[in-house]
Amino acid sequence: MTRDTIRIGLLGLGTVGSGVARILPQKADSLSATIGARLKVERILVRDLRKPRPIEVPSELLTTDPAAVLDDPSIDIIVEVVGGEQPALDFLRRAIENGKHVVTANKVVMARHGAELMALARQKGVDVLYEASVGGGLPIIAVLKHDLAANEIRWLKAIINGTTNYILTRMDRDGVEYAQALAEAQQLGYAEPDPADDVEGRDAAFKLAILASLAFRSRIPPEAVYHEGITRLTVRDFRYARELGYAIKLLAIARCSNGIAEARVHPCLVPLHRMLAQVRGVFYAVEVEGDLVGRVLFYGQGAGALPTSSAIVADVLELARDIARGVPRECPELGLNHLEVRPIHEVQSRYYIRLEVADRPGVLAQIAGVFGQHYISIASVIQKEAHEDALTAELVIMTHRANEAAVQAALRELGRLPVVREIGNWIRVDD
Amino acid sequence: MTRDTIRIGLLGLGTVGSGVARILPQKADSLSATIGARLKVERILVRDLRKPRPIEVPSELLTTDPAAVLDDPSIDIIVEVVGGEQPALDFLRRAIENGKHVVTANKVVMARHGAELMALARQKGVDVLYEASVGGGLPIIAVLKHDLAANEIRWLKAIINGTTNYILTRMDRDGVEYAQALAEAQQLGYAEPDPADDVEGRDAAFKLAILASLAFRSRIPPEAVYHEGITRLTVRDFRYARELGYAIKLLAIARCSNGIAEARVHPCLVPLHRMLAQVRGVFYAVEVEGDLVGRVLFYGQGAGALPTSSAIVADVLELARDIARGVPRECPELGLNHLEVRPIHEVQSRYYIRLEVADRPGVLAQIAGVFGQHYISIASVIQKEAHEDALTAELVIMTHRANEAAVQAALRELGRLPVVREIGNWIRVDD
Repeated sequence: MTRDTIRIGLLGLGTVGSGVARILPQKADSLSATIGARLKVERILVRDLRKPRPIEVPSELLTTDPAAVLDDPSIDIIVEVVGGEQPALDFLRRAIENGKHVVTANKVVMARHGAELMALARQKGVDVLYEASVGGGLPIIAVLKHDLAANEIRWLKAIINGTTNYILTRMDRDGVEYAQALAEAQQLGYAEPDPADDVEGRDAAFKLAILASLAFRSRIPPEAVYHEGITRLTVRDFRYARELGYAIKLLAIARCSNGIAEARVHPCLVPLHRMLAQVRGVFYAVEVEGDLVGRVLFYGQGAGALPTSSAIVADVLELARDIARGVPRECPELGLNHLEVRPIHEVQSRYYIRLEVADRPGVLAQIAGVFGQHYISIASVIQKEAHEDALTAELVIMTHRANEAAVQAALRELGRLPVVREIGNWIRVDD
Repeated sequence: MTRDTIRIGLLGLGTVGSGVARILPQKADSLSATIGARLKVERILVRDLRKPRPIEVPSELLTTDPAAVLDDPSIDIIVEVVGGEQPALDFLRRAIENGKHVVTANKVVMARHGAELMALARQKGVDVLYEASVGGGLPIIAVLKHDLAANEIRWLKAIINGTTNYILTRMDRDGVEYAQALAEAQQLGYAEPDPADDVEGRDAAFKLAILASLAFRSRIPPEAVYHEGITRLTVRDFRYARELGYAIKLLAIARCSNGIAEARVHPCLVPLHRMLAQVRGVFYAVEVEGDLVGRVLFYGQGAGALPTSSAIVADVLELARDIARGVPRECPELGLNHLEVRPIHEVQSRYYIRLEVADRPGVLAQIAGVFGQHYISIASVIQKEAHEDALTAELVIMTHRANEAAVQAALRELGRLPVVREIGNWIRVDD
């Protein structure tokens, strides 16, 4: 049965919701030409009918009653841009139960409950699309689902949090310390008044859980993603890293080999010649290595109302095309592979370690001895600055690949050495 | 009607064909898990049954008779990796006439006859997929078709020829002149014995015709794409460009505004801070600006048997998923918009111009006068090198945006000035 109008229920009319509500009528002609049917926003769920909106919407479309949208049998597709875990999750469940396709931008719901929602959707013969949940407008979900479907994905490395990448770019390029860069990001609206989710890596961890689950056709829950933020980075680390040929980025890394996955978000030294090192400001990038395609990278300005709307409307078009032709959709199954996630203390990496030590003969031998006892091989040691008054010097040590647990044990032991005045910092190195 | 086996006819068993023929059985289990049916290579068309192959294929699969593949009613999907215009085009027509879906890696056929094949496919209720025709494994066709479908594409800029990018990278980074870099590329197998299609920009022009047609939902024939090669670039130009903050790349550029398109392939100065300037060696990149998504860039190693197979198998999976479920496919229509393509002499650009001039007072005034008469505004003039013996100096002039016809007229006039010893080079500048 072919159809000439596809009806959409929109949940939420904030920044992104307003973008979607503006674009659909604005582009009605060109969109309908590509799908062979008209898209119509039928109802919009809001919390407050009288709140001033950035766009004009006919008031009869607005409702504060979830049932008026979720239970309206004329609505084909629910677009959820409410955000947060609840009530968004309940809304999505109910929409699917009612036989509606759903499009969501919700990373928390998809990371925590994506597999459940997709299983429910399969039962009900509808689909769940969520391109906008990761990377805003940057197409990465569809690319992993379709375009790279022939590949076994070996790893992916991503810069998927604009707030932290803006802060790190300011620290790296302009020598602005963390606290000031954060304050600026807040003034510009790039960081929330409470920036914890971004700067502590939780936002990126949710997104990585979604990407890793797709890439490895598995279920990687967000709790299995190790995350560590950017709050202990200093401009000095950026300067030393650059001298050594590296940028410092908050990377979201997922790997899979021999049935064991890694999934972690933490600051990383990235060689300057790599494309990921060139990603500045609020831009995103995802690099993927597949067994066939080799390395590919997707780069763009992810966040913001318009880029996110680009992803949401693409998902709506995808569904609408099939609805218009009367063609059933099938929600693909996640979790075909059962993967263990390696705990962070078993992960191997190279390390950058900065130490403040006593500036006298024999100190390096003691320090090297500690590394040796933990089977950590040192790649280079550079004495950066001597502070003659304090009789101390700063050492920057780069290790070869070593076990996280061994490095942490060595750092604890170094901290107890009388000749070590301070563990300045330690950062993993991407290779 | 659901199906448990999808049968494939493969046309061609060269490098890419062998890749596809090896991957499909190798990955049979994981691929069938994602589509719910098994993929089976039923017949393979070759020119010579006795030619040694890089892979072992059961000899009963091979045939030299096109009809044995194209007219076999059990075959669902034809994969064409024969290359070249004929007989590939006839094969594809016949496959579609016979109600088979087709997957092709053929840029010449798709650039010249894509619209015709897709119209035929619509009549016959089958689809034509061609991700591998541009950029090998880099997903760009699907991205334009689906993921950016909500966008009006303003422009795209691409590095889509690995041979020339390898040569330009050697010239730029290692100071190797064109002829030697080409010889090296030939030795490494990156360039053909007759490199004309690559180094004169024709290969990139075919690919750009395909991308521009999709991006602007129009029909941009390859003849409408202006192309100019890399053969007149010198290491000296790379050195001056770098001093001015630019790399030199062979860019494929398509733009669209107010119903008029531009489509052109030529060397271009690209600001070093742009991602496109960082694309080295045989890597590809496509940057796209859409009205919603802003700028996105896709980067990867395009060519080669495995990356190309990645794209081909992704297309096969896309079709197989629907065939397995008994769901009809619809080949989308190109050419909804009728666009004029602006001739190159009406295109506006900034220019880098290198002149060898007499080294004496008053020369610059004469040269500036010629530019002024053609309404070309000069942004900067730098005297690079003086040759005292010859009493000449080298000038590098950067212009503001100017009309191509005006610049060519000015260059002709400059060439006739007695004080101008030689027009060293002129290259457009991307902004």
